[in-house]
Amino acid sequence: MFKKILIANRGEIAMRVIRTAKEMGIKTVAVYSTADQDSLHVRFADEAVCIGPPSSAESYLKITNIISAAEITDADAIHPGYGFLSENSKFSKTCREHGIKFIGASPEHIDKMGDKATAKATMIEAGVPVVPGSEGILKDYAEAKKIAKKIGYPVMIKATAGGGGKGMRAVWAENELEKHWESAVQEATAAFGNGGMYMEKLIEEPRHIEIQVAGDYTGRACHLSERDCSVQRRHQKLVEETPSPFMTDDLRERMGNAAVKAAEYIGYEGVGTIEFLVDKHGDFYFMEMNTRIQVEHPITEQVIDYDLVKEQILLAAGQKISGKNYFPKLHSIECRINAEDPYAGFRPSPGLITNINIPGGHGVRVDTHVYAGYQIPPFYDSMIAKLIVTSQSREESLAKMRRALEEFYIEGIKTTVPFHRQLMDNPDFIAGNYTTKFMEDFVLDPTYADRF
Amino acid sequence: MFKKILIANRGEIAMRVIRTAKEMGIKTVAVYSTADQDSLHVRFADEAVCIGPPSSAESYLKITNIISAAEITDADAIHPGYGFLSENSKFSKTCREHGIKFIGASPEHIDKMGDKATAKATMIEAGVPVVPGSEGILKDYAEAKKIAKKIGYPVMIKATAGGGGKGMRAVWAENELEKHWESAVQEATAAFGNGGMYMEKLIEEPRHIEIQVAGDYTGRACHLSERDCSVQRRHQKLVEETPSPFMTDDLRERMGNAAVKAAEYIGYEGVGTIEFLVDKHGDFYFMEMNTRIQVEHPITEQVIDYDLVKEQILLAAGQKISGKNYFPKLHSIECRINAEDPYAGFRPSPGLITNINIPGGHGVRVDTHVYAGYQIPPFYDSMIAKLIVTSQSREESLAKMRRALEEFYIEGIKTTVPFHRQLMDNPDFIAGNYTTKFMEDFVLDPTYADRF
Repeated sequence: MFKKILIANRGEIAMRVIRTAKEMGIKTVAVYSTADQDSLHVRFADEAVCIGPPSSAESYLKITNIISAAEITDADAIHPGYGFLSENSKFSKTCREHGIKFIGASPEHIDKMGDKATAKATMIEAGVPVVPGSEGILKDYAEAKKIAKKIGYPVMIKATAGGGGKGMRAVWAENELEKHWESAVQEATAAFGNGGMYMEKLIEEPRHIEIQVAGDYTGRACHLSERDCSVQRRHQKLVEETPSPFMTDDLRERMGNAAVKAAEYIGYEGVGTIEFLVDKHGDFYFMEMNTRIQVEHPITEQVIDYDLVKEQILLAAGQKISGKNYFPKLHSIECRINAEDPYAGFRPSPGLITNINIPGGHGVRVDTHVYAGYQIPPFYDSMIAKLIVTSQSREESLAKMRRALEEFYIEGIKTTVPFHRQLMDNPDFIAGNYTTKFMEDFVLDPTYADRF
Repeated sequence: MFKKILIANRGEIAMRVIRTAKEMGIKTVAVYSTADQDSLHVRFADEAVCIGPPSSAESYLKITNIISAAEITDADAIHPGYGFLSENSKFSKTCREHGIKFIGASPEHIDKMGDKATAKATMIEAGVPVVPGSEGILKDYAEAKKIAKKIGYPVMIKATAGGGGKGMRAVWAENELEKHWESAVQEATAAFGNGGMYMEKLIEEPRHIEIQVAGDYTGRACHLSERDCSVQRRHQKLVEETPSPFMTDDLRERMGNAAVKAAEYIGYEGVGTIEFLVDKHGDFYFMEMNTRIQVEHPITEQVIDYDLVKEQILLAAGQKISGKNYFPKLHSIECRINAEDPYAGFRPSPGLITNINIPGGHGVRVDTHVYAGYQIPPFYDSMIAKLIVTSQSREESLAKMRRALEEFYIEGIKTTVPFHRQLMDNPDFIAGNYTTKFMEDFVLDPTYADRF
């Protein structure tokens, strides 16, 4: 087993890793930028090394500084957390070259799954469903028609140079294709000087449902069921839950098997997540693989009595998986508490936390690195806490989250707590009736800010 | 179901009840003395009524004030928590007379189990083992000899007027009885002017192991396994765990069955606890029944995924139990964090909490009513938080408790955190090798206070 792990990260995930390492009897080294010297991860690690100024590029992303810190402190492993260098193949490779175990994916796996086109091609080889579409740019309308027929309507035609919805059309039947094709090409040419179009199947009422997997060095993998992360704002997840209210035993088995197939096909080692889009028919399509621990991993831990960071460390140390899959025994929800003002477009709200009350009691878990008197620096991710509740049923978890959010007050800065309070009262959310489009129509009610 | 519950208590247990009531959609009323107006239970209840000055006798123990508060606020039920009026049969009866449901034991059950002699006699009738001994005062040495033979050595002879160990002798064999009898009688006569003696079986290496039970209005009961509460100081529990490291499946079944038998014999309704002394041979003896929720109830909740306060409320509202017994699936430990100075004989240390860091993360639960800026009043129980950890095994729970205690810092007052840190490193505690005598030989190491 490792003797000393350096955590190449900050904030709650650094605390998360330190906690498990301590429980395993492994020494820890924190690294920090000058902006983070008062952070709890610095305080609770056995050692701490300053690796640079506030700018991430000069500190948490600076491979040479982090490797030096590991060498100075004699750390024999590095845990990258999420974000920063966690999916940087060069970092993974540099660790390997320095004889330091990277508690994450190999450079080869990171490269293979990090490039979207390569990942998609690999998944097609593995027999995992991907969003059907054209291979690259469509030659002409005739090819568009042929491909659309093959993948089935509805389809999306998208400008290869596109952005902001320009040169993008949803087409629901063949007799509408020509009209949309022409106007999209025209619009793309006008907007981008490039009329190149490609096509994808339109995913109806898409949900973002991901499957947690774990693989060992023998090439065997297992899954740990799903997390529903459909509630997103600009591709940023806000709330996650497991089980998904959309999930059935049959769909879980099919998605779980596909995820295990994906992991085993590439011989994935460590914990990872296969993200899928699931349409209203229960058809699912590979989106991407995250070759790291995820922000939302605690809800999986809660419903299967499992420590995923411990599992990461054990797998990196050469332990084999048991081979069985894991299924949720409880229901868990996570709200990401961000230092952002939901009533000002979720604008970041760094600053001094003058007081804080952290919810507690039965079924409540909080992962955070902040405390009363902590100054949130403006340089990094705005997430300051994860509030996780767990109970026997989704209905009870909703009630528990409501009361926990009521107890959660943070003074001195703005946070997303009021948004979450409103979300937990939203009839569609309560009904489990939400897709990745959910937030597009969500209207914030400012009275939630004052209800405490 | 109840519409509004008044919580006739303060501190963490008031918060505990408020939380579950909120999750069940039931309104809550807090009561508070003038010393508690800034307590979280006042803040989080839907309504709050001041019931008197700081003195408990004039506030939390003042039945008329509490009943008035319930009537003013139209509460249809009262939860008494633990301590204060929770086992006061007059209060239970007064609630009944006022048409308010008392979420606790009936006056009859409180009276039956509250008087030690009556409780013991009832348990003998029920066929539950009690500590064997003389019935009242022994006539003479001849009777002492006869009873000792019957119950078996070792025995304790105890002065009926005794105290502080005076007039008390452990006797390990018949040939020593006469000598000890005479000196004990002599000592008791000299010390108390009363040479009356009674006899009990000496419990070798006693452990305090209690069984949680629940019973419904039909008279049926079930058990929810044990809690080991042997680590005590002057009969005050300091740490509890479940499963007990001493427990076997066979002993759990026998103790569980005895506890169910006890509860069913008296037709107990609600949740309650049967406390047993268990000797080194695995023989167990009824000590007393607590007809209320206990401080240490969360460890049971943690290992069986159960909300005991919810169960109390449901049983009080007339729900039936499922009939099955519950067995621990995980391991959980609770440390009682008291505002006391362990290095000054555990002297209370009330005052202002200037800062606090509450541990969090995987497997950690904290039940508390305090926060940074809270002023601990000197009038009540010194417990300010319960730190509860849960994991797959005792070894992991010990490691988790160590790291959680390391994170738990409280500034402005003295607490028992350093004591608990030392306890978690104690070889006998780690080995599960402890009895109710454990604290008698425990020597505090002040360096634990400074290790954070």
